[in-house]
Amino acid sequence: MSKSLSNRPAQGGNKRSGRPSEPPLIPVLAVVGVGLIGGSFAAALRQVGQVGQVLGVGRDATALARACDLRLIDRSCTLAEAARADVIMLATPVGAMPELMRELLPHLGANTVLTDGGSTKQDVVEAARGALGEAIARFVPGHPVAGSELSGPEAARPDLFLGRQVVLTPLPENPPELVQRVRQAWLACGAHVTEMSPVQHDDWLASVSHLPHLLAYAYIAQLAEHPDAQDRLRYAGSGFRDFSRIAAASPEMWRDILLANRTQIRQELNRLQEQLRRFDRLMEAGDAEQLETILAQAVELRRGWRL
Amino acid sequence: MSKSLSNRPAQGGNKRSGRPSEPPLIPVLAVVGVGLIGGSFAAALRQVGQVGQVLGVGRDATALARACDLRLIDRSCTLAEAARADVIMLATPVGAMPELMRELLPHLGANTVLTDGGSTKQDVVEAARGALGEAIARFVPGHPVAGSELSGPEAARPDLFLGRQVVLTPLPENPPELVQRVRQAWLACGAHVTEMSPVQHDDWLASVSHLPHLLAYAYIAQLAEHPDAQDRLRYAGSGFRDFSRIAAASPEMWRDILLANRTQIRQELNRLQEQLRRFDRLMEAGDAEQLETILAQAVELRRGWRL
Repeated sequence: MSKSLSNRPAQGGNKRSGRPSEPPLIPVLAVVGVGLIGGSFAAALRQVGQVGQVLGVGRDATALARACDLRLIDRSCTLAEAARADVIMLATPVGAMPELMRELLPHLGANTVLTDGGSTKQDVVEAARGALGEAIARFVPGHPVAGSELSGPEAARPDLFLGRQVVLTPLPENPPELVQRVRQAWLACGAHVTEMSPVQHDDWLASVSHLPHLLAYAYIAQLAEHPDAQDRLRYAGSGFRDFSRIAAASPEMWRDILLANRTQIRQELNRLQEQLRRFDRLMEAGDAEQLETILAQAVELRRGWRL
Repeated sequence: MSKSLSNRPAQGGNKRSGRPSEPPLIPVLAVVGVGLIGGSFAAALRQVGQVGQVLGVGRDATALARACDLRLIDRSCTLAEAARADVIMLATPVGAMPELMRELLPHLGANTVLTDGGSTKQDVVEAARGALGEAIARFVPGHPVAGSELSGPEAARPDLFLGRQVVLTPLPENPPELVQRVRQAWLACGAHVTEMSPVQHDDWLASVSHLPHLLAYAYIAQLAEHPDAQDRLRYAGSGFRDFSRIAAASPEMWRDILLANRTQIRQELNRLQEQLRRFDRLMEAGDAEQLETILAQAVELRRGWRL
């Protein structure tokens, strides 16, 4: 169902300064959306010397200027120029991707590979099929399972993907060498690369990422409705801090994810609501034994997991 | 409704080695349940030189031996001997406290102050009234809002309470000087000390601590029911890690908390379930605008909070 690939960088795992004759994996990289993911992708590739020039596209001129100052990109450019790069990384909220693809299409370079970092894959693939026509073959969908509640170019860091999973959901139309180029770029960032179908990706990510975000947001929304929320918050400790950290993540990005993957998220949510009703019944009944059994099972699973 | 006290240690904020003539705040401390909370309380007081001898009581001989090795306690003792200490800290799961109080009562020293570190207060106070009779005056209920998903003596550390809230819920029967003794002990540990009623405590803690724990446990319990849970977990990232960390906390302790404070926890849970239904409806309706509004409100509250 999924295939794991080595995360050992075949080349470019270290700075390439000792081998100046070898060209970088990506002579020209264009990053559309120079925030946490796009900026970190550029920074990681630059750190291992696997990128020549980095161009940046964004709707926010201030963010682009900061990305330049931070050396994440060499300069900003138009979408038309970005379309002729060797690799284009779409790293915007998923809701913005269809329109960007339509604008890139007429200018797309003959050897350009287009990839993305979106947190949902079925909707992005569907949008790409609608927007790109035959050029769909040049789009290799991807999702780095790494992030932060921080966003914007300042949050970017070259080690964001180190040891983390990147899921590619290649399309039947993709020439293998294009998939390979995207895979190598992520391996050079220090990531593990796995391939699976868009459906599988969205199902699993709904479970381990989207649902926790939804719960954290809903929890904070509930807390916010207490008139004395600020008083309560004075007694919040490290458990609260870690549990709710993801409820500080970009509302725009998560609005798009919750809608894009709503079918699978709502399925997981429905299962979770069943569990909550079960906990509620056990508390009401004062069933200490059954409650401890469930808690102990959860604890066993969680303690056995390592990032 | 609540009263905040300075967390600047009036005395004992530093090692007392330079002032050997001054007696420690607590000549003999007895810790019943030498785990994360009890062990850290002893370690913190010892670090600032505010405790003479530390006695430990526990049902697990191996844990007591480790607590000795780790210098958390000087030696183990019987409950009857512990009952004559200057301060007794009950740091067991709350479900075990009534029986312990009954056993301590016939041996309780004339000047002994009994306190606890339980995460719920109404049930502990009710149990204390039932178990202690007139000696209820000597019981000053407390709750350090600090913890870890780790437990046992190895998890204890002297800085666990540094800068953290400790809530005392003094009883009308408590002589002020006994409350003051407990307050000073916590201040010496570097904590902030606040006083409020048991009801207020349980209401607020249900909101900012007990409900998040319940959600994290229920989430992991739901995940565990997927036959391919281990496959899914391979794609869990740092968001999952932090969100679910508290689902690794002691099942025994949390079974007791969920039952002891069930009325207030179930109220919060009910509100949370309403929020989840609201999110579900907005996803179903594809209402991007309203969804972003709620997410943005949650983000604002969460980003404005600091531990």
